[in-house]
Amino acid sequence: MQANAISTATVIVTPEQLLAHWQGHRGLTRRVIEAFPEDKLFTYSIGGMRPFSDLAMELITLTFIGIYGTATGEWKELKDLYTGDTQPKTKEGILELWDAATIYLNEYWRQIESDRWQEVDAALGQYEQPVYSSTLYWLDNENHHRGQGYVYLRSLGIEPPFFWDRG
Amino acid sequence: MQANAISTATVIVTPEQLLAHWQGHRGLTRRVIEAFPEDKLFTYSIGGMRPFSDLAMELITLTFIGIYGTATGEWKELKDLYTGDTQPKTKEGILELWDAATIYLNEYWRQIESDRWQEVDAALGQYEQPVYSSTLYWLDNENHHRGQGYVYLRSLGIEPPFFWDRG
Repeated sequence: MQANAISTATVIVTPEQLLAHWQGHRGLTRRVIEAFPEDKLFTYSIGGMRPFSDLAMELITLTFIGIYGTATGEWKELKDLYTGDTQPKTKEGILELWDAATIYLNEYWRQIESDRWQEVDAALGQYEQPVYSSTLYWLDNENHHRGQGYVYLRSLGIEPPFFWDRG
Repeated sequence: MQANAISTATVIVTPEQLLAHWQGHRGLTRRVIEAFPEDKLFTYSIGGMRPFSDLAMELITLTFIGIYGTATGEWKELKDLYTGDTQPKTKEGILELWDAATIYLNEYWRQIESDRWQEVDAALGQYEQPVYSSTLYWLDNENHHRGQGYVYLRSLGIEPPFFWDRG
């Protein structure tokens, strides 16, 4: 019994720590968006890939939909969760939406029940997996796409912010 | 007391789940290494960045050093932890070292004490932070660099493996 109790209670990362970790990444991604010249953000591509504005919009959308679904179990669309402009066409507009997602993430993260993380749910209405797994997926996806943004910036001759700087 | 006990015991992800999550990523990164033509793996670069062989070696090195230090509290160098070739000059050699790291990670992960994750330690002998934070850093770093590998492959006209495929 005792061994089992200890094993079950192993805390790798607390909810507060994981939120801070994600928001640290989000701060870095915001600086990567800022580092793009306005036109390149919406047009620059390598190998037929999407411009970084599209990647940033994917990350914003997953943050809104993901945290709302994680907290409530309901998977909605971005336009149902945010009343402002959800199709920004300027860097300023994307950064505004990014910042709205930052506040939204903090707000709904607090509402996640303690036993929610290990529940199986169909994330985004279709990916049947434990809730923790979906959250890690979104975090991984942000690292993945932001890493691609680093290559875009380097190939434009622009030095990206330091990967380790999450301030 | 009760509320505090529940809060402290929130398990987002168990050690077994986080290991499986990381190894799933490592399987994908292995397929990205495989997707590179032999010469491009060691020479291809965009914007002055390192070739993917160098990025893969960074990931391999951090896996060995990281898991050994996480399990034991001692931060050693790769050559002290692996007796085979630590400077492979072929794709086959890198994949061999990659697979050795896979076994090594499984072996040492099992030895991590339950309360180790929240301890503060100087990761790699220099980064003073909680152990969980270092582990997430290495995972994030793999996503970051592998994402860059995707851009290299796309710009070479090679379709990378699906990001979501961790089998």
